[in-house]
Amino acid sequence: MQGAVLYGPRDVRFEARAVPKIIQPTDAIITISAACVCGSDLWPYRGIQPIAQPTPMGHEYCGIVQEVGSAVTSVKPGQFVIGSFFASDNICPTCQIGYQSSCQHRELVGGAQAPLLRVPLADGTLVATSDVPSEDLIPSLLTLSDVMGTGWFAADAANVKPGSTVVVVGDGAVGLLGVLSAKQMGAKRIIAMSRHASRQKLAREFGATDIVTERGDEGVARIKKLTNGVGADSVLECVGTQESMMQAITSTRPGGYIGYVGVPHGVSLDGEQLFFSHIHLHGGPAPVRRYLPELIKLVLNGKINPGKVFDLTLPLDQVAEGYRAMDERRAIKSLLRPNGTN
Amino acid sequence: MQGAVLYGPRDVRFEARAVPKIIQPTDAIITISAACVCGSDLWPYRGIQPIAQPTPMGHEYCGIVQEVGSAVTSVKPGQFVIGSFFASDNICPTCQIGYQSSCQHRELVGGAQAPLLRVPLADGTLVATSDVPSEDLIPSLLTLSDVMGTGWFAADAANVKPGSTVVVVGDGAVGLLGVLSAKQMGAKRIIAMSRHASRQKLAREFGATDIVTERGDEGVARIKKLTNGVGADSVLECVGTQESMMQAITSTRPGGYIGYVGVPHGVSLDGEQLFFSHIHLHGGPAPVRRYLPELIKLVLNGKINPGKVFDLTLPLDQVAEGYRAMDERRAIKSLLRPNGTN
Repeated sequence: MQGAVLYGPRDVRFEARAVPKIIQPTDAIITISAACVCGSDLWPYRGIQPIAQPTPMGHEYCGIVQEVGSAVTSVKPGQFVIGSFFASDNICPTCQIGYQSSCQHRELVGGAQAPLLRVPLADGTLVATSDVPSEDLIPSLLTLSDVMGTGWFAADAANVKPGSTVVVVGDGAVGLLGVLSAKQMGAKRIIAMSRHASRQKLAREFGATDIVTERGDEGVARIKKLTNGVGADSVLECVGTQESMMQAITSTRPGGYIGYVGVPHGVSLDGEQLFFSHIHLHGGPAPVRRYLPELIKLVLNGKINPGKVFDLTLPLDQVAEGYRAMDERRAIKSLLRPNGTN
Repeated sequence: MQGAVLYGPRDVRFEARAVPKIIQPTDAIITISAACVCGSDLWPYRGIQPIAQPTPMGHEYCGIVQEVGSAVTSVKPGQFVIGSFFASDNICPTCQIGYQSSCQHRELVGGAQAPLLRVPLADGTLVATSDVPSEDLIPSLLTLSDVMGTGWFAADAANVKPGSTVVVVGDGAVGLLGVLSAKQMGAKRIIAMSRHASRQKLAREFGATDIVTERGDEGVARIKKLTNGVGADSVLECVGTQESMMQAITSTRPGGYIGYVGVPHGVSLDGEQLFFSHIHLHGGPAPVRRYLPELIKLVLNGKINPGKVFDLTLPLDQVAEGYRAMDERRAIKSLLRPNGTN
């Protein structure tokens, strides 16, 4: 088969890869219905996060189970499944309290930008739908594997409640789905920080009530003005830079909450500043597995349509263009369809 | 009158000071029943936090109202009152959500190690008891002004619930009262990190179920062993150094909570480590005012006896010895009685 392999900065190749096989009895092999490019794929793509060797790419996936290992009992060939980018056993003490992305036996899933994928710990990782869903639902279901689950976690970690005033820092796909999540959780006011017309438009469609284009001190001043002078109840940090984290901290009211899901790159927090900010801070890799059953229901019932973040759909063999378009911010998020089904 | 004034490292003098007077119509003057030395007083006492000029010391206080400004309506002369180290208006949006120590009009109270004290924003800051309490309750009521309120906030910020497993980092008075608070909130297992026999004893008396004397990696290994291999649900960080904060972070289970109340000195947190630790982080200067009514009730009803942290009582004119004893860790906390009433 052929799949996406990253060789170095801005060098993604679509090339022959070994067909994945069952290695552990707890594995499953799935036929990918759709995959996509993640914002976090851009860190190594841009060379900010170096790679040691050519690396099969892709960790967001959904598809049809093709084969399962001898120990797998909860999914079977023919079923449509979605799983997290972190495989988890879903039974260890950490999974039991809902932090499957810190599972004691977690494994990163990799190589999903391909026609076939091996998923470890299939019983604890994959969630099957009762029927194979219709084609039009595939993009939204795919987002639950990471980007939507991550936006949801950001809003959950930021304690968004009915009536909350929310700021979303970052207008990438995660930030936009953070807006959607905050809306779904009942936020009254949702302030999206964005300077890009197409992203502002989608933010509004997802529920943003205000757009702030300013950044830094000016951005904070605008947010204070919109929030009774005190700052937001909940701030979703969906970028992962020092600037975005400081933007989040200074936009939150004393006693307010930050949910941060952008993988921090070179971020350092001053203890004294954090102390006197009086904020709650929570984040990390989203425990997608915890949210999958609930989010699948919301998609199947038509309550949410997170698949709208895909503004570029490509056949898998054009994966390199998918990366380029996101890197150059021509696309919010690129959907990849194997087997020419785009 | 005479009160405590810090001149420089380890130089506290008991000397003549101006008698405090009503300056703002919202002020009150109180006759101090008891004051004490705070762990945070040791930062400038040790020269770690430099002072610009001779500074009247003391911010923990309770006493009898002597005089009130013309705008004060909620307390009157003759009443016994307790207040926070941060004066607050208790009506701004930040106070209304329970973060009075970040009040938009907050003022630090200072100079309480003296017979008389001016308290700004008296209506928003002071809480009166219905009667003047008996002498034996004064030490416990005094702790509510800061040290007990701070230990309580640490436990609250660390989300201590009935059944929780709790670690307390720091065996100073705040840490010990963090143990008492966790016990009062229903924690099932309370692990106190302490190497000092007298503090271990008081920790056990306050409800600690386990004592860990190891620190660093060895301390973490011991805590993991005691917590099913995952770490504690709640960790109270009651010191404020880089080492104590790292001890707290590495002792918390994924998804667990840290309440940090030690004023950070030179603490820097790595964003990526924090991200993958999956912890909740909350802290800051304790919003003592929020807790005062509840904690006063617990003391008056005999449910808690936080005054036990005072293992040294001195007449106010011996305040310098009160500092020395705490600096040298001969005393956990020094109580100071003006007017020779010790």
